[in-house]
Amino acid sequence: MNEATAVSVEKQPLSVEWIGGVDGYLRLIDQTLLPTRLEYVVCRDVETVWEAIKQLRVRGAPAIGIAAAMGLVLGVREFADRSASELRDRVLAIAERLRTSRPTAVNLSWALARLERAAQEPADSAAEIVERLLDQAKRIRDEDREMCAAIGRLGAPLIKDGAGVLTHCNAGALATADFGTALAVLFHAHAEGKRITAYVDETRPLLQGSRLTAWELQRRGVPVVLLCDSMAGLVMRQRKIDAVVVGADRIAANGDVANKIGTYALAVLAQAHGIPFYVAAPSSTFDLSVPSGADIPIEIRDPREVTHGFGMPTAPEGIDVYNPAFDVTPAELISALITERAVIRPPFEGTLATTLSSRP
Amino acid sequence: MNEATAVSVEKQPLSVEWIGGVDGYLRLIDQTLLPTRLEYVVCRDVETVWEAIKQLRVRGAPAIGIAAAMGLVLGVREFADRSASELRDRVLAIAERLRTSRPTAVNLSWALARLERAAQEPADSAAEIVERLLDQAKRIRDEDREMCAAIGRLGAPLIKDGAGVLTHCNAGALATADFGTALAVLFHAHAEGKRITAYVDETRPLLQGSRLTAWELQRRGVPVVLLCDSMAGLVMRQRKIDAVVVGADRIAANGDVANKIGTYALAVLAQAHGIPFYVAAPSSTFDLSVPSGADIPIEIRDPREVTHGFGMPTAPEGIDVYNPAFDVTPAELISALITERAVIRPPFEGTLATTLSSRP
Repeated sequence: MNEATAVSVEKQPLSVEWIGGVDGYLRLIDQTLLPTRLEYVVCRDVETVWEAIKQLRVRGAPAIGIAAAMGLVLGVREFADRSASELRDRVLAIAERLRTSRPTAVNLSWALARLERAAQEPADSAAEIVERLLDQAKRIRDEDREMCAAIGRLGAPLIKDGAGVLTHCNAGALATADFGTALAVLFHAHAEGKRITAYVDETRPLLQGSRLTAWELQRRGVPVVLLCDSMAGLVMRQRKIDAVVVGADRIAANGDVANKIGTYALAVLAQAHGIPFYVAAPSSTFDLSVPSGADIPIEIRDPREVTHGFGMPTAPEGIDVYNPAFDVTPAELISALITERAVIRPPFEGTLATTLSSRP
Repeated sequence: MNEATAVSVEKQPLSVEWIGGVDGYLRLIDQTLLPTRLEYVVCRDVETVWEAIKQLRVRGAPAIGIAAAMGLVLGVREFADRSASELRDRVLAIAERLRTSRPTAVNLSWALARLERAAQEPADSAAEIVERLLDQAKRIRDEDREMCAAIGRLGAPLIKDGAGVLTHCNAGALATADFGTALAVLFHAHAEGKRITAYVDETRPLLQGSRLTAWELQRRGVPVVLLCDSMAGLVMRQRKIDAVVVGADRIAANGDVANKIGTYALAVLAQAHGIPFYVAAPSSTFDLSVPSGADIPIEIRDPREVTHGFGMPTAPEGIDVYNPAFDVTPAELISALITERAVIRPPFEGTLATTLSSRP
């Protein structure tokens, strides 16, 4: 609590931070408490991280990847005085456990796989491997921060002075190491002096738009108008929206994008109104092993998120609920993919592999 | 409270009822408390009715019309021992007051105008006029019930056996004298033995879909799946939806439809997926004096409905909110208008005037 109070004056506290050395801890902003309370989850063991990912205390594909990588360190460091072989087995077991926390987010598997590879490299001791894993986890974080900055820099030219820009869910600093993906584009355009207005879908059921995105934009001084998800069509028709920019949870080889439920409907609406629809994501979000969106598993979440989302029931008892966390937007509805390497225009098939081939 | 408890066993209590004679009272289901509590607002004066309409305790264009008509009786009956002329002045004053409670709902003006005309007809005494007004108000209710039944009968053939039918907001028994408009179609199809599944948008910000529509359908045994508004696009793409049926707050002469915010986006999505989009409404909802949807005033409601909808803040303090209560769906997106007289197919211009010309 004291810690939370102490840092609440920071303008942009980071969603995921490692505090101290290899015996330190992982500190996460508890995003379920925003915007009314800025508090932290202090993670000193892997189960606290697993729960934080599962319960969306930390969310956003890149932030989950960083948290999982750091969580792996927490889960294996007690084996630092064993043999390297025992430690490597432990790494595999803990990575396996962490992978079950969110099945759809590809960054989670990607970050864990990277640490698993690092663990396999020759080492004099288990302790050396643990140090190396922490170093890798921090590098993933630093690279993510740089990638987000690059996405902002490359994407900002797509946003005109005076533009209304619609976004959905939270693809912001909270979802990443810093800056965000979709929001990096808005932050960069704003920093360049463009007078933009962000239109933010509240994003039911968990309200990441109103709770997180509106909060981030407000803190960084970007003008914000909050909307219910059902209002996006109207503001498009009223010509208030010049571009839609969203993030992504996973992008298939053909350019299909899995992202927060509601993204697909926005893409259809944007096309119907002749509004460009951009997806901003680092290359780690691309999963070229998946041919198309049809092959991306969609996580179905607890009905109570819909029926009891605000501490009181909002639907009759016993009602059936369909609560998919994601949908897939087909590539043909996407005007461009904004990555840290390039703004990629359609057709995406083949282009993606080339552009992202030098991926780490 | 006792009254509420006593009737809570009724299968389908009516949203608007007049209890007793001319010295009786108006009883409204307090729809803001559903689905967790079935309680009533007992109205013995016009201000209670005004507040109930304003605060959406009674909502749905036809139900508002009936409540306003009965509210007018409450507001004028204390003049029953004055002169007919004084009573007629009072009728105009109270009608004027009631009109300010909800500016968009045309049934409200329409019902009040009908009572104003009735008041102007020759009478031996003010008391006779008051009796006549109550009689008119009850006739509006009875006609509405018959209209809703007819809408259900005429609309049901549009719904195929096994269909998934998406609806938005509440155009049900609660919104009318009974049965509803959009829901009358579903109730009738279900009663005919068709195995339909209703997909119900929760309908932010006030959740009429999850609180009211899901409740009504569940009570009448129609299978229901509750969705967040942002999920409608996905279930259409998944081919779970065979038809969209919604109500209307006002329909212009060219067939443009003002209805709950989010309706327009559903119509765009339905067209993109080749799904028929039906609007069910009694002829009293048509306002042929309004050439097109562009001329329909859109009520902008309190931002706190979006930011504080559930007893706790869900957005940062001081955030700008755009909270339109309605949007306008252009006629070209509508497959048919289901009225109590006929299923009207496009083009609507001219057809509407003819079909509705014998309107009471």
